[in-house]
Amino acid sequence: MKTINIGLLGFGTVGGGTVQILQETLGEIERRLGASIAVKIIAVRDLNKPRAVSTGEIPLTDQPAEVVNHPEVDIVVELMGGTGLAKTLLEQAIENGKHIVTANKALIAEHGNELFAKAQAKGVHIFYEAAVAGGIPIIKALREGLAANQIEWVAGIINGTGNYILTEMKKPGADFASVLKVAQELGYAEADPTFDVEGIDAAHKLTILASIAFGIPLNFEKVYTEGISKITAEDIQFAEQMGYQIKHLGVASRTEAGFSLRVHPTLVKNEVLIANVNGVMNAVMAYGNHVGPTLYYGPGAGAGPTASAVVADIIDCVRASESQLPVPPLGYLTLSEEAEVVEIESVASAFYLRFFAKDHAGVLAKVSAILAEQGISIEKLHQEPCESKPEDATVVMLTDVVPESAMNAALAELANLSEVDGEIQRIRIGQFDAE
Amino acid sequence: MKTINIGLLGFGTVGGGTVQILQETLGEIERRLGASIAVKIIAVRDLNKPRAVSTGEIPLTDQPAEVVNHPEVDIVVELMGGTGLAKTLLEQAIENGKHIVTANKALIAEHGNELFAKAQAKGVHIFYEAAVAGGIPIIKALREGLAANQIEWVAGIINGTGNYILTEMKKPGADFASVLKVAQELGYAEADPTFDVEGIDAAHKLTILASIAFGIPLNFEKVYTEGISKITAEDIQFAEQMGYQIKHLGVASRTEAGFSLRVHPTLVKNEVLIANVNGVMNAVMAYGNHVGPTLYYGPGAGAGPTASAVVADIIDCVRASESQLPVPPLGYLTLSEEAEVVEIESVASAFYLRFFAKDHAGVLAKVSAILAEQGISIEKLHQEPCESKPEDATVVMLTDVVPESAMNAALAELANLSEVDGEIQRIRIGQFDAE
Repeated sequence: MKTINIGLLGFGTVGGGTVQILQETLGEIERRLGASIAVKIIAVRDLNKPRAVSTGEIPLTDQPAEVVNHPEVDIVVELMGGTGLAKTLLEQAIENGKHIVTANKALIAEHGNELFAKAQAKGVHIFYEAAVAGGIPIIKALREGLAANQIEWVAGIINGTGNYILTEMKKPGADFASVLKVAQELGYAEADPTFDVEGIDAAHKLTILASIAFGIPLNFEKVYTEGISKITAEDIQFAEQMGYQIKHLGVASRTEAGFSLRVHPTLVKNEVLIANVNGVMNAVMAYGNHVGPTLYYGPGAGAGPTASAVVADIIDCVRASESQLPVPPLGYLTLSEEAEVVEIESVASAFYLRFFAKDHAGVLAKVSAILAEQGISIEKLHQEPCESKPEDATVVMLTDVVPESAMNAALAELANLSEVDGEIQRIRIGQFDAE
Repeated sequence: MKTINIGLLGFGTVGGGTVQILQETLGEIERRLGASIAVKIIAVRDLNKPRAVSTGEIPLTDQPAEVVNHPEVDIVVELMGGTGLAKTLLEQAIENGKHIVTANKALIAEHGNELFAKAQAKGVHIFYEAAVAGGIPIIKALREGLAANQIEWVAGIINGTGNYILTEMKKPGADFASVLKVAQELGYAEADPTFDVEGIDAAHKLTILASIAFGIPLNFEKVYTEGISKITAEDIQFAEQMGYQIKHLGVASRTEAGFSLRVHPTLVKNEVLIANVNGVMNAVMAYGNHVGPTLYYGPGAGAGPTASAVVADIIDCVRASESQLPVPPLGYLTLSEEAEVVEIESVASAFYLRFFAKDHAGVLAKVSAILAEQGISIEKLHQEPCESKPEDATVVMLTDVVPESAMNAALAELANLSEVDGEIQRIRIGQFDAE
């Protein structure tokens, strides 16, 4: 039986999990693959740090170049993270004819086009299932399982921290700040939570999903990104009263004008399965023109789930290396270079609006007139006394589907109304088929 | 670019859908695969029947042997169904060195062991994604996406007809018979609905899921199967009051005694995502020791979804035929032959019990005593006047987890109580981690 040699860059929790799975289930993997897998060398930051996972006789090095230049290494598994040194090392690995397995979403989203081109030129493979939605095999599902479809849209809860926060904010008395603090204490959120709560992490993953779904180059810099830090517990309650959950979604859709890539809070109807995905769990919906709606759910982070995806990729990578017709990294041998990614302004959505209005007679007439001027109809309206400001009313409305530009124009005028007190909350409503 | 030739057995709705996808998206498929696909010949039952999908210049034949013996056909796509002629034809195709793509769950579940052995001996591939859960790429997810895991259990809504009936029975005034009639009118259920509502179709699919999950031979004859025809609207309401939905699940689990394969109505907690899968949709949960819980959702039937899976299989089959290390049909090169499938009696479950009791004081004491004698505790109890029989009370109880054999012994004694009026309804409660 042939043995494939792995070199590991990074040995944190995911690296440890990967080595552990390879050690514990090597017999099973051989029974699946018809080949064996050996870890040949591991690059660590600090040779003296105690390790939870025994590396046995595998040599450790603090010189990562030794891994990518190791003559016997067939596949470099990159779990160090970052887009600087990791990129340089993987470029060298590709140059040396080695295949790549990586969990590095930022690297793939920001530099994947370049890396894939280099890999193609050298005839090596890059696999990155762990980069999106952790243990959920969503890359494989889109790239292979739905290969017969034109994917119309994908929409996903692809950041567990954000979903945990929005789920916990449903509890009585909770607000964004207090829940974030708990999430930080539990280790679900970083000390600086910007990356998660402002949607940058989700934008990395959405970039990758969009390219696989549509067969287009990676477009990270064109993703519209809006975080969840301005969502209030009241918004979540009002949405729920109207039959919706607020989820932080990454959405990529095929529109008449071009492809739309965006990350923002979204009202999702309770009947749509993804509305019921709670806590740190991830889920991705994909709508194919033949298959219709599908959904993939599971843990989006953690050593076990991420290492599960890394090891599946290693197996796939070995198979690809022995194939005359391997799966291309984004599912297509050639990408649609002419694909245009459109600005958010040209995307159409229905909207949730919530604002405080000085309770003068006639304010709703003024608001409706401004909306009507932009061709916006109100589908649902709810008004109640404002608890925090007794002189105000809280007004919540759901609109029909209108271009973002029309909504922006209306919002600018609404903000000028003397009766509108403070900022106007505006959240997009997802247009997903429930079934 | 190399061209792979397909021969089609059967040209019903799925066959039509398959040809249509191949015609419409050939350019996309070539861009994915780096090879072309041509339909060389189609075997139909009746040459004179009008067709919804144009076959252009593809020759039709009413002699299916012509397809499997066609010298230029590389892959035989079997969409005719049945386990008689279809089996004979596929055996001949394998003998002739042709690869197989099939949507035939009965054939794979009942004769897959034999067919896979023959295929292995001839070095050809068999793909059958469309056989389970229609358009959901669940075979691929289990076989490749979760390959690093020991799968602990799978549990799925894998029959859309049954799920439609149970969903519709939640509406006021609905009962099994009336909903079945509507399902038949809508074309969701056959004139003879036995295959769907008694769980035989689900047992076929569960057989296949279990073998892929555990790497064991196909064991259709060992699947315990119980239908939904005895579930009443009251059961569904009582379950809902207690925080559960009743779903017809196929469950395969790894137990200490061996593997358990079963299809039966199951109470599923509302918090478990699959409890929210409604209508004709399918969903499969898979729990891996590293990844944890995952779920895959989508349409389980219909021309588009099924053809989506068939075409993805054709692409995979072409790739496998050009590989030195192709994916084995059940994910493993060798199966665990020693695997024992245990009888339902040795499986442990929590139970929902519902019966009518003559409202004598002391009946609950007698019932509890009989249960206690078998080591069964009552976790929840609900009693209310019986609407249909004013002299009776309806008693609903949820028990703790006990061996099926203990419950059977208790039920036999309970049935002898003069205070118990009529049959005792007994439904198993699913033990799924919500997250």
